[in-house]
This record gives sequence, C-alpha cells and structure tokens, in this order.
Amino acid sequence: MHVDPLETLRGRRSAKWRTYPDDVLPLFVAEMDYPLAPPVAAALHAAVDASDTGYSLAQPDLGVALAGFAGRHWGWDFDPGAVTAVADVGVGVVELLRLLTRPADTVVISPPVYPPFFDWAPEAGTRLLEVPLTGEFRLDLPALEAAFAAHPAVYVLCNPHNPVGRVHTREELTALVRLARLYGVTVVSDEIHAPLVLPGAEFTPLLSIPGAGEVAVSLLSASKAFNLAGLKCAAIVTGGPALAALVGRLPPDVRWRTGHLGVLATVAAFKEGDAWLAELHAELDERRAQLGRLLSTRLPGVRWRAPEATYLAWLDCRALGRDDEPQELFLAKGRVAVEPGTRFGAAGAGYVRLNFATSSGILDEATARMAGATG
Amino acid sequence: MHVDPLETLRGRRSAKWRTYPDDVLPLFVAEMDYPLAPPVAAALHAAVDASDTGYSLAQPDLGVALAGFAGRHWGWDFDPGAVTAVADVGVGVVELLRLLTRPADTVVISPPVYPPFFDWAPEAGTRLLEVPLTGEFRLDLPALEAAFAAHPAVYVLCNPHNPVGRVHTREELTALVRLARLYGVTVVSDEIHAPLVLPGAEFTPLLSIPGAGEVAVSLLSASKAFNLAGLKCAAIVTGGPALAALVGRLPPDVRWRTGHLGVLATVAAFKEGDAWLAELHAELDERRAQLGRLLSTRLPGVRWRAPEATYLAWLDCRALGRDDEPQELFLAKGRVAVEPGTRFGAAGAGYVRLNFATSSGILDEATARMAGATG
Repeated sequence: MHVDPLETLRGRRSAKWRTYPDDVLPLFVAEMDYPLAPPVAAALHAAVDASDTGYSLAQPDLGVALAGFAGRHWGWDFDPGAVTAVADVGVGVVELLRLLTRPADTVVISPPVYPPFFDWAPEAGTRLLEVPLTGEFRLDLPALEAAFAAHPAVYVLCNPHNPVGRVHTREELTALVRLARLYGVTVVSDEIHAPLVLPGAEFTPLLSIPGAGEVAVSLLSASKAFNLAGLKCAAIVTGGPALAALVGRLPPDVRWRTGHLGVLATVAAFKEGDAWLAELHAELDERRAQLGRLLSTRLPGVRWRAPEATYLAWLDCRALGRDDEPQELFLAKGRVAVEPGTRFGAAGAGYVRLNFATSSGILDEATARMAGATG
Repeated sequence: MHVDPLETLRGRRSAKWRTYPDDVLPLFVAEMDYPLAPPVAAALHAAVDASDTGYSLAQPDLGVALAGFAGRHWGWDFDPGAVTAVADVGVGVVELLRLLTRPADTVVISPPVYPPFFDWAPEAGTRLLEVPLTGEFRLDLPALEAAFAAHPAVYVLCNPHNPVGRVHTREELTALVRLARLYGVTVVSDEIHAPLVLPGAEFTPLLSIPGAGEVAVSLLSASKAFNLAGLKCAAIVTGGPALAALVGRLPPDVRWRTGHLGVLATVAAFKEGDAWLAELHAELDERRAQLGRLLSTRLPGVRWRAPEATYLAWLDCRALGRDDEPQELFLAKGRVAVEPGTRFGAAGAGYVRLNFATSSGILDEATARMAGATG
C-alpha cells in the first residue's frame, strides 16, 4: 500500500504527527499512515462540495451499512434499527455505564487493555475491578467467574483485545455469555478492532452468540480500520428488547454529538470499502511478518506474540534489563515514539505498544533506531 | 449569497434535509443553506487529500485562531492557552456542570431558550430553575438577583440569546457579573452565536467585563456562523486561575471527543473567514429585512422583534387564534417546517422559531405557504 514520504505525512495535523518533534518517528497512537480508502475520500470531498456539514442524522443509513458489513464479513445478521450512533466507542461505553451502574457498583475490565478503559468507570462515577488476562493473553474465565460471583454491574470486553491483538474465540465468548447470564452481569463489548482481524484469525461478534442479546451490548466503528478516529462516529448495537430500551434512555443530546462527516465516511467505508480493506489486511499481514523478522534479528531481547488483529504490537522489553522504562529509552535515544506499557495497566511495566500501520521503510528505520537505543 | 437550487440542497444528508419529506421546506434546525466559506472548504479538502483524519490535537492552533478572531471582532484579548477544545457547546456545558454542581444544587436558565438548555442540568444530574426573560426579551435582573440569593450553583447565560436574537448589553452583563460575584454563582456563558451579531448591534464577550474571569467561563464555536455543527468543535475559554483549574479537571477522554476536521475547519474559519463572514452578515441583514416585509404583508397577525443576532426569527403566532399549535399548522397545511415554540419552554406556546439563513426565493415561498396555511 502506498505511504507518502515522511515530509508529506508530517503535514498532517492529527495527534500522531503533532505530539512529538519532527526528528521522532511516531509509532504510538492508533492512526495509520496509509491513504484513505477511495470511497471514503470521495464521500468526504462530496460532502464538502455540497457544504453538507450540518447536524448528523445517522439513521437509517448507518445501521444499514453496518448490518450489511457485519453480514458479509462475519455472518452476523441484525436489524439495522438495532443501531444507535454515538461519537465514539468511549462515549458509548461511558453513557451506557451511567445507565447501568450506581456509584457503589463495580465495572470489571481485563488488563493489559486500552488506556481509556481505566478512565470510563470513574468518569461514569463507578468503581473498577481488574481481572487480568492470562499469561497467554486470553480471558481468564475462572477468575472472571470468581469476580462475577460478587455481582459487578458490568464487564467491559475488548474484542479484538487492544493492545495484545487477541481475537477471543467463539468458545471463550460462549463461556463468557454463560457467566454473564448466570450472575446477571451486563457485558459491554468494545469491538472497534473487529474490521482489523488479520489473516489466520476469525472474528466472532459477541451478539452472534446465542443468548447474548439479553446480557450484552456491542460497540463498533469504522474508525480504526479506515483511520477515521477524528471524525467521531461509532455504533451501539443491541440484540434484545431490554438493552434496546436502555439505549433508548440515553440523554437526548447524545445523538447530536456524532460527527456528520464521520457518519458519511463510515457509511461509505462499510458499504463500499471491502476491496480496500482486503488490501489493508494484506498490507498489515506483511508488516506484521516484517516486524517479526526485524525484532528477531535486531532486538532479540524483545519478546512478542504476533497479534491476530489490529496493527498494534505488544512488545515485552523486560529482558532488555534496563532501569529506564523502555518507552523513555526508545524515545530519548532512538527518537521513536511508542506507547508506554504502563498506560495499559500495572502489568504493562516493561512493555511498549508499537503501531505498525506504516511503510516497510519506516518500520525498518524505527526498529533500527530502537536497536541502537538499546546498545 | 449564492444558494443552490432546492433539488441540490436536498442532496445534503444533514438533519435539515433528511428529517422531513421532500415537499416540506425545512426552516427549522440551525443549519444554513449557503455554501461553506472558501477557506473552510479548502481546509477540509486539503485534510481529506492528506488523509488527515486521525485524532484531533486542537491546541495551540484553536486557541490562537479564536483569540485572533476575538481580538479583531470584539476587542477581546486573551491568552490562547486559556482555550480548551470540546466537541460542542453542549458537551462543554454538561461537563462543566458535572464539575460545578452536586445533585441538590440548582442551575438557572432564562427561557425561552435553546431546547438543550433544559436537558443539560438533568444530564449532569442536577436541577433546573427557570428565570424567564422579560417581556422585552431582556435579562430579568431583579428576578435573577432573587434567584441568585438562594445560591444556585450555576447560571447558564445565552448570549446572543437563542431563539429571541437578543444581544445582551455591556450594562446588563456588568450587572450580571456583579450579582454572580455577590452571591457566588458561576456563570457558564454560551456565546455560540457571537459571530452572528448582525448590523445594528454589538457583541460584548462576558469575559471582557472586569471581574468576570473569577466567576465566568465562556463557550464559543464557529459552528453556527460557518455552518459546521456536524464537525464537532467548540472552545471553552476561561479568564482566571480557579476556573482554568476546574477545566483542567475535565475527564481525560473529553479532549479526544473533539472532531479533528472540526478543529481544522474552525481554525480556517477564525483565521481566514472574515471576508466571507462580512458577506454573510450582509446577506442575513437582507433576509432579516425581507422577512419583516413578508410577515407584515402576508402574515400580519404574526408579531416579532427582528433579532439583533442569529438567523433565527422568534414568531409570536398567538394572534392567529387557532387551537392547533402553529408549528403543526404550518407543517400540515403549508408544508413548512419550523421549530415549535414549546421546545424553548412553556412560555413558547403559540410561538415558532424560523430559520431565515436561506435564499430570498425560499423565504418568499415559505412565507407564502405559511400564509396559505392560516387562511
């Protein structure tokens, strides 16, 4: 896939390109360096040409586009009317937590996990309980059962799981749904990376598990796979009447907070983006393999499991044997910006998260600089 | 100002053009029918061409652009660092109310006022107290003093005031600041229509009043004047250390909810949009005058005060003497959509709000249809 030269990329004004000085290679925040999918770019140019920049009215277009995408890619068929637009997955989770919890309740998460997972429960005025992934980066079902037995209000699932790139299996999700039903825990499923499941793995939507609709609500978006994080559009999907009624009680202004260009771009992505997405998957599959080769030759002390999904690599740098947090080392000495592992929970100490959605050249240069920094 | 033909406008997918069937003239929600300002359209096309659609990083650009605009237009000089980006004014108000209030507190508003004012306090978990405008649509300062004496937590000011189009005077705002300081009430000032003050009136930013910075926080946006409501960018401005510290306590994810294209469009609007904005003011001044002529000849039973700001006309239809709410009448019989006055508070019964940011032809047609509906 084409990637513009660095000096062109540096003309972007998003967080990836404006947080660090120009001598730093930014491989931290989850933005991609590839060009927009042509149907998405065309939809955005057309909207600007039509001065179509007013308030969003996402439905029914968003639901129809997402349901079509879900049916084609995952065999998941649902009513487009089961979709509610929100500005982003985080907004959706927080607003759902406000409706699902009281201050004394607990919300369970499984670190290491996307840093905002640690912010959402406090933002909604409730408490967090951490049930870490296993050492294999799988859901720890026995530990989750022990936690669920104390009747937390909500479990926030991350599937595919950021930062480790794990795609939870149908068997694991079936077991999770059974536990949720048994103990009366609502599962809020962040499936933002679902369109980024790479060759070798298969995505199972939580709501495709029998019985899940009564206990689970899912959040999806085109934002990660189509690089639209700044356009502010995600989708809440429900699978049963009780949780649909709950979503119906969201504050009235939430709908107006969705980005109109985000809706238009998302509809284009989900309806017309399949060919481009296939190219993206092939590109990311190559970059994933390249990163594996580069790590083994240049940074043999760094351990990783190649992710099954996402363009994020969760790198175990503990064997580098340095006191400096590895993120600080790579930034200060290598001029490469990655995410510090501790942002993903205490168990992330000694880890970093590296974004490989870039060119082979930049990935080559970044790993060379990281290796130099450890010398 | 150029306005595309109706069949072209109907190609827009925003709320204004998708809520009603095609035989209805939509003069309800606050979107404009004019083309985007050329610098704004250019900034958006450039961002799409650069695939610059990742996470927003608003500062320092947003603050510099807004401070420049405020200095040139209103003689209001402030530190660009006093600006914090949020997705829209409503999000900013709700998040500030969450920090400023407890459940037993009250939040004062002055109806008739923009419908979300009635939603924000409940969304933040606190209670509303209504202190209506006077019959002249001015702040009722004696009534506000009586209310402030009971120590509400916050007064949410609307200046210019939607839907009546009143621009509060420096004297009124000075008196308001005095009361706020005297009784310890924080003023949250919605100044979203400030760039839409029309010829004949002058805008006074609340924070330009001496002493206001200690008790007031303001919210501004390019969204109304530049028709960017769907792009999700507004600005919180503070004038003193205590309220700046309060804004610093906003939840960490709030910043990521701002639209990146909204930031880029807003920066372009505030930095390079003055010439276009002058044309817009002249256009709206003409439409305002045209509407006055059309109402007096075609709908002589409808009373109004020409607004000093905004493109919104608050029409007193009570003398039409019909049982049907006038909004329903105009929609059902005239196929013209306006906002029902009751959405702006109980005192809005018998009123409608009409959006005149359109062509002379559409305004002519709409008033003709409205007159026919009353026949």
